[in-house]
Amino acid sequence: MSHTYKIIELVGSSPISSDEAIKNAIASASQSLHHLRWFQVVETRGHLEEGLIAHWQVTVKVGFTLDSPD
Amino acid sequence: MSHTYKIIELVGSSPISSDEAIKNAIASASQSLHHLRWFQVVETRGHLEEGLIAHWQVTVKVGFTLDSPD
Amino acid sequence: MSHTYKIIELVGSSPISSDEAIKNAIASASQSLHHLRWFQVVETRGHLEEGLIAHWQVTVKVGFTLDSPD
Amino acid sequence: MSHTYKIIELVGSSPISSDEAIKNAIASASQSLHHLRWFQVVETRGHLEEGLIAHWQVTVKVGFTLDSPD
Amino acid sequence: MSHTYKIIELVGSSPISSDEAIKNAIASASQSLHHLRWFQVVETRGHLEEGLIAHWQVTVKVGFTLDSPD
Amino acid sequence: MSHTYKIIELVGSSPISSDEAIKNAIASASQSLHHLRWFQVVETRGHLEEGLIAHWQVTVKVGFTLDSPD
Amino acid sequence: MSHTYKIIELVGSSPISSDEAIKNAIASASQSLHHLRWFQVVETRGHLEEGLIAHWQVTVKVGFTLDSPD
Amino acid sequence: MSHTYKIIELVGSSPISSDEAIKNAIASASQSLHHLRWFQVVETRGHLEEGLIAHWQVTVKVGFTLDSPD
Amino acid sequence: MSHTYKIIELVGSSPISSDEAIKNAIASASQSLHHLRWFQVVETRGHLEEGLIAHWQVTVKVGFTLDSPD
Amino acid sequence: MSHTYKIIELVGSSPISSDEAIKNAIASASQSLHHLRWFQVVETRGHLEEGLIAHWQVTVKVGFTLDSPD
Amino acid sequence: MSHTYKIIELVGSSPISSDEAIKNAIASASQSLHHLRWFQVVETRGHLEEGLIAHWQVTVKVGFTLDSPD
Amino acid sequence: MSHTYKIIELVGSSPISSDEAIKNAIASASQSLHHLRWFQVVETRGHLEEGLIAHWQVTVKVGFTLDSPD
Repeated sequence: MSHTYKIIELVGSSPISSDEAIKNAIASASQSLHHLRWFQVVETRGHLEEGLIAHWQVTVKVGFTLDSPD
Repeated sequence: MSHTYKIIELVGSSPISSDEAIKNAIASASQSLHHLRWFQVVETRGHLEEGLIAHWQVTVKVGFTLDSPD
Repeated sequence: MSHTYKIIELVGSSPISSDEAIKNAIASASQSLHHLRWFQVVETRGHLEEGLIAHWQVTVKVGFTLDSPD
Repeated sequence: MSHTYKIIELVGSSPISSDEAIKNAIASASQSLHHLRWFQVVETRGHLEEGLIAHWQVTVKVGFTLDSPD
Repeated sequence: MSHTYKIIELVGSSPISSDEAIKNAIASASQSLHHLRWFQVVETRGHLEEGLIAHWQVTVKVGFTLDSPD
Repeated sequence: MSHTYKIIELVGSSPISSDEAIKNAIASASQSLHHLRWFQVVETRGHLEEGLIAHWQVTVKVGFTLDSPD
Repeated sequence: MSHTYKIIELVGSSPISSDEAIKNAIASASQSLHHLRWFQVVETRGHLEEGLIAHWQVTVKVGFTLDSPD
Repeated sequence: MSHTYKIIELVGSSPISSDEAIKNAIASASQSLHHLRWFQVVETRGHLEEGLIAHWQVTVKVGFTLDSPD
Repeated sequence: MSHTYKIIELVGSSPISSDEAIKNAIASASQSLHHLRWFQVVETRGHLEEGLIAHWQVTVKVGFTLDSPD
Repeated sequence: MSHTYKIIELVGSSPISSDEAIKNAIASASQSLHHLRWFQVVETRGHLEEGLIAHWQVTVKVGFTLDSPD
Repeated sequence: MSHTYKIIELVGSSPISSDEAIKNAIASASQSLHHLRWFQVVETRGHLEEGLIAHWQVTVKVGFTLDSPD
Repeated sequence: MSHTYKIIELVGSSPISSDEAIKNAIASASQSLHHLRWFQVVETRGHLEEGLIAHWQVTVKVGFTLDSPD
């Protein structure tokens, strides 16, 4: 059978690391969406305060199955 | 009057051809969205099994009218 | 606290100017979404009729807070 | 019927604004070409003199119908 | 001897397939230009009507010999 | 277990269609490589003769498992 | 004689328009740098508040003569 | 006064060097066009024979004044 | 009030991790610049020795306020 | 003396982190290749299962000396 | 007949010029590969010592026939 | 030890060749900066007069050590 996937774009943030920012974005997505399948990083940025990284901000695309459970 | 369009990103798949994968993505979108206006291909990929193309996977952006019927 | 933002892609149009097309896209988004935070221009195009710009069409990405009010 | 469109690339300039530079490019194109259909902005630059913008220079692609009037 | 080639940009359309849209663009080009040598696909889009692909629209660059027959 | 994949870049050609050109590239790769997993299209071009498409030429990246069978 | 130019990257902002944001960036640059020659737009973004554009933010590259007055 | 420029895309070739290939493209353009103003390199390629560079092939965009002599 | 920001490009390095390389770049920037506001990752590379990552090298753009303290 | 380097493209994976995925790709490369010199990240993706990151998948290019030891 | 081509990526270096760096990369490739057909420049860089260019480093993709001699 | 590098962007020009334009940019940079380490070409353009290349203009990024002599 041929699945269709939808891709949404999110920005996750974290004061800790770039990987944590990605995990936070995935965690937010998984609260309302099931069947998440993959993510891809679009951009890594961060907010600076007092010469330090206050928040890592990573833009990700997240793909999930549209049509059916598996 | 000035329309606003929304663009969503989908991945259609097909065991047959790249064009079929696109058509499948459009068909899925048209089940829940009306007033689809255009699509543009973002990426063409595929899944290989036993040295053959098991599924064509084409990422498309699909634009539709947000604000009103016409 | 770590926010997650969602990014959507819209095309605003206007017979007047490129900036108006962007404002129209933002205005449409703000009718259904709260906590809009930023936009970025993806592409500027337009529809021509009789040798003149009939509509400016500007594709923008709009980011908004997903998880909580502030 | 299936149209074919041709795309040409122009740089319009204006001392006034980026939108005017685009309009000037379209106006030049419409003097020799009929059936102009759309434009898309490729690049926005400008020439500076005495610390001010002397000319806005906007590169656009302009599409027009090749094969037939409609 | 050293040839110079010119590249033009066309959009071919077809109600049938993406490959047909490319062939239509090449066919239009060959009506007025000789010595066509190669094409490259720039973008694949399409116009949607009633939830179906009404026209495939493929932008191609077409290269041809400028200076001489061979 | 964590796999490592290798990606190679091929250009497949075909007088028939863009999809056939891709299939030919995959078929060549599968003669010497096992465990092919995916491909992605990098560029679609073609060679023109007498105003017609003599060969479709599609550049693809092909990924396969490096470290082990599964 | 052969000039060398230096290019710097600035983000200008304005509550009024995208063109004003560019002019503000140029005005800031011209306070400390002479011999500004050109600019090119890198990105157009904006900050949203209450569903409206609070600030346009345009990233520009600005080129100026390094080696000598003319 | 505000000029409009047109940009065309050419591929120059040379058995000698990449710079010669560009000069050959410019020379071809100047045979039929006056008021050439600038060029920019789009791509540098070459044709190989017997393990050597038989021809350098450089794609350039060439800009020239459309509307008037100066 | 409308701020202007300047963006500089740095490469931070670290034997430990990609995030550390970014932090080192920010730390260097903060020694001479105040009012750092954001960074964005441009490229992640690394130097290999004896089959291991000797140094992570991450290119970042760093934005800071030009015109005034806040 | 003038070295020539070869660049290969790999995808490393890891259940732990993006940096580990890169290290795994390098480790695989170093099993069969000597004189690895640098890597650059091409893309960061991941596979999701049950709303969590099951595998980080990072595409890297790895450069190594072709012609001689040093 | 339909050929399949393989593309490899090399970095040639030379203390003399960018063109020499490309020729050195081609020369290295031709020592082990026959049927080289074309190259395309991916990136031009260089190593600086004492304020001078110590080595030009040019990344090229080189295409060659996979399946058969002609 | 972990170095931090700064990258600046310059445009060198030369009436002679593209390589000379790069060398001129490096020469200008080395008058005020020590510890230059590498450059990378961003864009190659030129100014045309009377159908000939009056100046080659090459944009380069130049990297140098920020934190310490070596």
